[in-house]
Amino acid sequence: MKQSKVFIPTMKEVPASAEALSHRLLLKAGLIKQSTSGIYSYLPVATRVLNNIETIIREEMERIDAVEILMPALQQAELWEESGRWSAYGPELMRLKDRHGREFALGPTHEEVVTSLVRDELKSYKQLPLTLFQIQSKFRDEKRPRFGLLRGREFIMKDAYSFHIDEASLDTTYNQMYEAYSRIFKRVGLNARPVVADSGAIGGSHTHEFMALSEIGEDTIVYSENSDYAANIEKAEIKYTPNHKDEAAATLEKIATPNITTAQALADHLDKSLDEVTKTMVFKVDGEFILLLIRGHHEVNDIKLKAYFGTDQIELASQAEVYNLLGAHPGSLGPVTDKSIKVYADNSIQDLLNIVVGANEDGYHFINAQVGRDFIVEAYDDFRYILEGEPLIDGSGPARFAEGIEVGQVFKLGNKYSEAMNATVLNDQGKAQSLLMGCYGIGVSRTLSAIIEQHHDEQGIIWPKSVAPYDIHLIAINPKKDEQRELAEKLYGQLTQAYDVLYDDRKERPGVKFNDADLIGLPVRIVVGKNAGEGIVEVKRRDNGEGQEVHIDKLHDYVDELYEQVN
Amino acid sequence: MKQSKVFIPTMKEVPASAEALSHRLLLKAGLIKQSTSGIYSYLPVATRVLNNIETIIREEMERIDAVEILMPALQQAELWEESGRWSAYGPELMRLKDRHGREFALGPTHEEVVTSLVRDELKSYKQLPLTLFQIQSKFRDEKRPRFGLLRGREFIMKDAYSFHIDEASLDTTYNQMYEAYSRIFKRVGLNARPVVADSGAIGGSHTHEFMALSEIGEDTIVYSENSDYAANIEKAEIKYTPNHKDEAAATLEKIATPNITTAQALADHLDKSLDEVTKTMVFKVDGEFILLLIRGHHEVNDIKLKAYFGTDQIELASQAEVYNLLGAHPGSLGPVTDKSIKVYADNSIQDLLNIVVGANEDGYHFINAQVGRDFIVEAYDDFRYILEGEPLIDGSGPARFAEGIEVGQVFKLGNKYSEAMNATVLNDQGKAQSLLMGCYGIGVSRTLSAIIEQHHDEQGIIWPKSVAPYDIHLIAINPKKDEQRELAEKLYGQLTQAYDVLYDDRKERPGVKFNDADLIGLPVRIVVGKNAGEGIVEVKRRDNGEGQEVHIDKLHDYVDELYEQVN
Repeated sequence: MKQSKVFIPTMKEVPASAEALSHRLLLKAGLIKQSTSGIYSYLPVATRVLNNIETIIREEMERIDAVEILMPALQQAELWEESGRWSAYGPELMRLKDRHGREFALGPTHEEVVTSLVRDELKSYKQLPLTLFQIQSKFRDEKRPRFGLLRGREFIMKDAYSFHIDEASLDTTYNQMYEAYSRIFKRVGLNARPVVADSGAIGGSHTHEFMALSEIGEDTIVYSENSDYAANIEKAEIKYTPNHKDEAAATLEKIATPNITTAQALADHLDKSLDEVTKTMVFKVDGEFILLLIRGHHEVNDIKLKAYFGTDQIELASQAEVYNLLGAHPGSLGPVTDKSIKVYADNSIQDLLNIVVGANEDGYHFINAQVGRDFIVEAYDDFRYILEGEPLIDGSGPARFAEGIEVGQVFKLGNKYSEAMNATVLNDQGKAQSLLMGCYGIGVSRTLSAIIEQHHDEQGIIWPKSVAPYDIHLIAINPKKDEQRELAEKLYGQLTQAYDVLYDDRKERPGVKFNDADLIGLPVRIVVGKNAGEGIVEVKRRDNGEGQEVHIDKLHDYVDELYEQVN
Repeated sequence: MKQSKVFIPTMKEVPASAEALSHRLLLKAGLIKQSTSGIYSYLPVATRVLNNIETIIREEMERIDAVEILMPALQQAELWEESGRWSAYGPELMRLKDRHGREFALGPTHEEVVTSLVRDELKSYKQLPLTLFQIQSKFRDEKRPRFGLLRGREFIMKDAYSFHIDEASLDTTYNQMYEAYSRIFKRVGLNARPVVADSGAIGGSHTHEFMALSEIGEDTIVYSENSDYAANIEKAEIKYTPNHKDEAAATLEKIATPNITTAQALADHLDKSLDEVTKTMVFKVDGEFILLLIRGHHEVNDIKLKAYFGTDQIELASQAEVYNLLGAHPGSLGPVTDKSIKVYADNSIQDLLNIVVGANEDGYHFINAQVGRDFIVEAYDDFRYILEGEPLIDGSGPARFAEGIEVGQVFKLGNKYSEAMNATVLNDQGKAQSLLMGCYGIGVSRTLSAIIEQHHDEQGIIWPKSVAPYDIHLIAINPKKDEQRELAEKLYGQLTQAYDVLYDDRKERPGVKFNDADLIGLPVRIVVGKNAGEGIVEVKRRDNGEGQEVHIDKLHDYVDELYEQVN
């Protein structure tokens, strides 16, 4: 393609509001243009990359027998009422009315539509398993759109849905999809780690997120340098190894701690370190109060708490509830009480002997409280966020933290939608049974951004070969000079036989052309310049700058070789 | 692909509400499923055909240097206010508010977005011409969605927009696009005729529609059997050849015609044929009244009237206005009057000498009115719809009528949007000048329907090879039998090297399989049945039934040959 025919509005300066590196480069290299907050047009270069990503996705989906469909963006409210999401989904769901006043949602996902699509058609377990996917624009009215394509209001997703008669079949497809996703991200050049993620508290459902490591990330990933272990920070489990202090048991003593309501202030007051004091919190679990004891430097992890108690109905008690229950306010609470209330404690509490706790009296704490003597712990478990450096659950060593972009997720839905929407098939006993479902998403426009986050340098983007918008950037330094223009056009004609070539035929200064070429970042660059008369051109790799001047007689072999070496 | 993994819910009976043949076959062959009125999901077979159509479109767009982009479906109201369409567009425009109360349209077309996209980036005529296209779901809230995909509320379009510094450049791209469209429709197997279409009254804009001939059509096309002439019925011009009757001039006479207010009743009353009497209508043209005289068997064509007077502001005068003006009601009106009002007449009025006209007095007509003697005709022209069999303007013979589906349109927009939205570039004199624009659409989902309208038989669809969802349908009659299953799977493995194969491995009765195969309509069918043991299979073309039993040693050559012959 001649660059004069392509629309690539590169920019010198990008708006300061573009925080993420990929956002800045997408704007700077002329790949996207904002239409309004969180809504973008994909310009020619980006569209080619998206098409390449989508082709790879389609190949890998077909390989695991997932078949492509296309469902509507306009989804009638009735479907969402069946699943209960019409009222449950917040303001992120974009809603509208048609000319007859009927309500519609603009699809952020398609569980309802796909379930209604198959429920009338699938009659028997013999028609299962079935996996359907689509690639399509989705809508989510983000409160604060940001990071360019990373958190937009209209974005491109590949979403897939699978249907099964039993868990074994769901497991098989889940694992195939997991493998397909690993291949897809590898093929598009992304370093994306599958991490264990939260799937909500109830049921045995199971999910992995694929996180692309990046400078800017909306999620923290916990991983091991010595194993495949990786999890979302919410989900990362801690291996508890006892580490008792060698100290003598002391007598419980109440001390005045006026105006001290934080663990840090308490530690300072006692001339201790933060990890030597504790915090006690009151939670309401399914309506019943419990106490939770953790050490001063730890933070409670709600998701672990919900998983432990097997319920979503967990909340921190209000100040009033706490005062009513224990006669003191948060900051002075502790497990030493004659009230009948169960005490749970984080594993690491077991390492403490003479414990500092609130006295359940405002302005007072106990020192030297002891488990068993002064209070009972109902159960110890992992109730908190992991800290960087702590031992990982798989024993592979210390936790490392990284920022990441979620580019994909695989999820076992179970029968959540099929039960609500009455999607059943007959099993091999002839009995109606709810379908088991899995759902699987890839953020296609996010993937585009994540690739840029991982593949760039100071000068611009460095596309992996598999998704590069064109293979070769052919540049005529000064196309007004006949010898340069003629040679460039001859090479353009030849090279397009084997490669996608972007031919910079524009009447622009060399500086502008090189600058744009660096920004656009095609794998191999061929420059036709002052030595065109002798048939000599310059060939260079974008990634490492390798290359040389080559006579056109040897050009094709050299280009083939160089292109082959690029990743 | 194994058919057991694909979702093809064929139907025995389709709802009676499915009027159009393509709609019935789309449902029957399991290609689409209605989600709600005018909104459909495309199932796997349809999605493959759509992808094939889109690939052909992309190839032909690239060939004429049109570059692909992707603009958002969500379009902020501000853009539509700039163009004036926010208030001008009727209830077909789907509108919604975001969480902050800002108004958006769901794009039915993208003139506003694309104009805003380029106006900040295009600075100079040197960056022109530029042609951008996209393939995307569009939204239009049809009052009465019908004919399946032919008139839906969410549908797939390819839309392209071109930008130019002058008419010559616009003409060049318009013609390239016209040729590309002709190639696209030919390649997808459609008999689609480009027809001259209406482009509204004002300015020299120019448009062609591509109409696929079909049984059911929303438009009537007028064409010639002897030339390339084709036009929408609204636009078809009539070649006027004088055909004066040989009769003596008679005296003007007023006759009583009580309760006669239609041309037919008048003709009956006078014992004449309908074409021997006339009708007079009063129009308001830019606020000024005129009389229009046509013959009894003709119908006024508003579009020709608007084109003649060069204004959109033309409407039929109300009964009150007419009575106030002429002292009579419609049905008794005529050109013989002492009021100062201009009379225009259709060309064919010139063939009449003693004319029957209304007397401008309720219940009375004149007979033997003569032009020049009793009234003056300001001008004769072609003001009416053509009738089948009338001579066409190009002299190629009688008009033929056909029904058609509009599958594409090319349109010279001129500077309508660029002026309204202030999209200018500097011309070669360094002066700011409004961009000239063209826009070009293909209804992708309509094309899918139109292909089916043109390619089917009693048993089902007959896909043209270029867009067929798979190339070969391989059917194991009874896969429970080892010899059949094993041979079929061996052939499946071999054939997929060169072809897209749909392998019917389902445990269904042979009748069901054959029926489904006929409905789905793949170019070549291979049946592995009772002679599998001897290595003999049956090969057949879907279109003409040609084929034979073949030994597997000769199968590949035979299939290659047969497939080659299919269109």
